[in-house]
Parts: sequence; C-alpha cells; structure tokens
Amino acid sequence: MLTGAEPLEPVPPARRRTPAEEARTLVAQGRVATLATLSEDGSPWGSLVLYAALDDGTPVVCVSTLAEHGRNLRRDKRASLVIGEAELDGDPLDSGRVTLAGRVEEPAGGELEAAGSAYGAASPASNLYGGFGDFTYYVLRVERVRWVGGYGRMDSPDAAAYHAAEPDPVAPQAASAVRHLNEDHADALLAMARTLGGFPDATEARCDGADRYGLDLTVGTPRGTGSTRVGFAETVIAPGGLRAATVELARRARG
Amino acid sequence: MLTGAEPLEPVPPARRRTPAEEARTLVAQGRVATLATLSEDGSPWGSLVLYAALDDGTPVVCVSTLAEHGRNLRRDKRASLVIGEAELDGDPLDSGRVTLAGRVEEPAGGELEAAGSAYGAASPASNLYGGFGDFTYYVLRVERVRWVGGYGRMDSPDAAAYHAAEPDPVAPQAASAVRHLNEDHADALLAMARTLGGFPDATEARCDGADRYGLDLTVGTPRGTGSTRVGFAETVIAPGGLRAATVELARRARG
Repeated sequence: MLTGAEPLEPVPPARRRTPAEEARTLVAQGRVATLATLSEDGSPWGSLVLYAALDDGTPVVCVSTLAEHGRNLRRDKRASLVIGEAELDGDPLDSGRVTLAGRVEEPAGGELEAAGSAYGAASPASNLYGGFGDFTYYVLRVERVRWVGGYGRMDSPDAAAYHAAEPDPVAPQAASAVRHLNEDHADALLAMARTLGGFPDATEARCDGADRYGLDLTVGTPRGTGSTRVGFAETVIAPGGLRAATVELARRARG
Repeated sequence: MLTGAEPLEPVPPARRRTPAEEARTLVAQGRVATLATLSEDGSPWGSLVLYAALDDGTPVVCVSTLAEHGRNLRRDKRASLVIGEAELDGDPLDSGRVTLAGRVEEPAGGELEAAGSAYGAASPASNLYGGFGDFTYYVLRVERVRWVGGYGRMDSPDAAAYHAAEPDPVAPQAASAVRHLNEDHADALLAMARTLGGFPDATEARCDGADRYGLDLTVGTPRGTGSTRVGFAETVIAPGGLRAATVELARRARG
C-alpha cells in the first residue's frame, strides 16, 4: 500500500510529551537498568541493576561492594544508567530508552529514608539486604540526559527540565488501552481520523499510541496510508483518566 | 509448604552447562545489549545497541559517529556489553546476564564479511545503513567475561573458555518445551522425580528448566518441596533434539 498520504483538512495542533517528559516516563515505568561504571583501570563496566526513582526522577540503586559495580562506585562516583521500555516488541532500535549520566552520592537523612522506601517498593528483598554492611544506597545526581524515542526521535533535555517534568500518569495503562481501542472501537477511531484528524476520506484507522495528551493514529485512505494525532480536550492528570478522555474524544469526533 | 526436602535415594550426577556455556548461550540468544563506552571526560556512558555474534562468540556492533557511543569508540576502544535474558519474568536479579569487556577493533577481510553478514541477520536494515560513511562495524575483542545466572550463581570464565564453549542449541526451544511438559506430561515428570530424581515419595513434579544436558525439577512430597535434576542419556547436539531426549528420559523413568 502507498504510504505518506497527507491530511486533506487542517489538523488542530495536539500536544506531545516533551523529551523531558518522555525520559521521566521511561524512568517511572522501569525497574531494571544497566549501570555503567568505571573499572579500576578506567575502562567502562556494564552490569544489570534494579533501580527506583525519587519523586523528582533521581534514580536510586543499592549495590554491594562484593560486586564489581559496587567496588567501582566506591572508587569513582561517575556512572550512567540506561533504562529502556519494559516491553520490547518489534524493532528494538525503534523503542524508547534513556541514558542518565552523572555522579552517585550516598543519600543522608530524609533523602536516605526516601531512597530506601522507593527502592523497597521496586525490590521488596532490599528491606533485608539493603541493611547489610556491604550494601550501599546511592542516588545518581543527574548531569546529562539522553533520550531516544526511536528512529529520528531523540533529544538531550537538560537535567533541570528532566527533574521538573512529570512522568505520564497513563503510561502504565496505555498499551492495554490501545489494544482495547483497536479491538472494540474501530468505528470511533475512524470517526476521529475523519473529523478531527484531517482525513475525511479515511476508510480505516488504527491507534498506535496513547498518552496523557492524545492518541496517535495510522489512517488508511484510497490515497494510501497516513498518520495523524488527535488531542484530548484536557490533559489527563490521573492514571484512571485515559478512558474518560478517549470517550470525550469519540463523542466530539461524531459531532 | 515446607521447602528443602532432600532426595531419599542417591541421584546420578547430571551435567550442567558451564559458566562459559551459559555466557555463550545468552549471547547467542540475544539481539539487544547495553554498550558501555567512555565519554570524552572519561566517564562511563551507556547506550542501547543491536549486536550479533561471530561463530566464536565475538560480538559485533555497528555504530554511527553521529551517535555519542560511536564517537566514544573512535576515541577510546575500551568497551563492555551487557546482555540479559530476552524474556524477563519474575525477579530480574534472579535472571541470567553476562558482561563482556574488552576493546573494539574494526574487522577486516574475511572477518569484516562475517561481521556484516552476522549483523545483517540481527538487523536487516543494516544492509543499508551499515554501508553509510558514518557507520562502522566493530568486533569486541573479549578480555573479561562475567556471567551471573541469578542469586548465588555467578562466575568469571576466562576469554579462551568463553570462545571455546558452545551455545546451547536447545535454548531457543527450552521455554516452550518446559511449558509443554508441565501442561501435558505431569505424569512423566512425576515418574522422573520418583525413579531418577531420588524422590520415591514425590506426589507432584514441575519442570523449571530444560537444557542440552537435562531437566531441572521442583518436586512436591509429604515432607515438603525439594529440587532435583535429571540428566539426558546423551547431550543434545541439535536444536530439534530436545523432544527425543525427553521422551527417552520418560521411558527410562517408567522402567
């Protein structure tokens, strides 16, 4: 089928997550990361870790000096963490991932408590081993953020923007919402593509993504396949809000 | 339920994959890795890459100097690759992963051809972009191998042992074979546990893993739950051989 069909009517601009929001969303969704540290001779060492995130997106790890990465961090605080999408399907290079680079620091006081409690939620066993003498909680003071969303979608938001951004609250539900829309509401998606998405000649529409700001659609027309985005009337602010926003969109699409 | 029930009868020793074989198997099974390189200031930088492996387990990557990791490798050849299990379920810290560390080198002649063809199988698009001027194929000359199989299972086979080992040919089929055994052949597993696995009082048995050398079983008894391993009569040498080996095991278990 032909691709690259353009909309026939103007499409209202629909807000997208910023790169900082994308990065925060990946970090909030994940639990497993690859930690890069420096071996004694200065060469780069990668290892798998569990991590958690504080409210401002600062990552927390808990490592043992019995492990190479723990000895590395004790010697040299420089580190980076790579976090990817939890569910990888399709082309991995077209998936989202983020690198957070900076220096680790041992948290103290209230931050140590917050770190222990966030990490405990990610790794229940840490309530035990986190207290062992060879284990240390570290927070990563983020200096650089590199986000890649897939082919041609990438950016390096600064650390302040990263911390200020919010993770998308609907991300945990997005995949199942997309499946449900495609399986049970093809008619609503088609109406959205025709009346809101700029494709009055659409013959079919598939949802490819859902986030707090709207839906991404792939649209089939007699002229070929195109893509568009339809925005929610209001930004979804709570995990459960995706359904209501989509219903409102469908109602609006049907006039 | 009680755990830690011991066998009541002697269990014949059943071969296990060596750490080098475990590492080679993980590398052969995967396609996505995290690459750790050195940024200009010497700090560690992690990024997602696709990789392939040559016949001796030497990893191949193909990176662009438009990307930070490509510029890093051009400046400093030291790198490590972290490769984990493709399907992560359950506790990620109890999953298999391997770190390969060393120096990258640009392959030439026959090795460049082999690298391009291995990488092309992992990333079909690379037949296009691999030829672009900004992309370079690198092989990682492995100097250090760190394998972690899960809690308490870890080792550092040397590079020669890594290259000499074979990936387990049945690994791609193992998960579905285990499911099939548990769903449709509980009786055969129970017979194995009773007559070959040292638990004559077994009341149930579940398969937890299958490899070229045998099956790992969790066994329920009135004394609590235990675990055992039953070895195949012969090492499986081809991907399709797991079924015949398991049938032979079941026949032997039933006497």
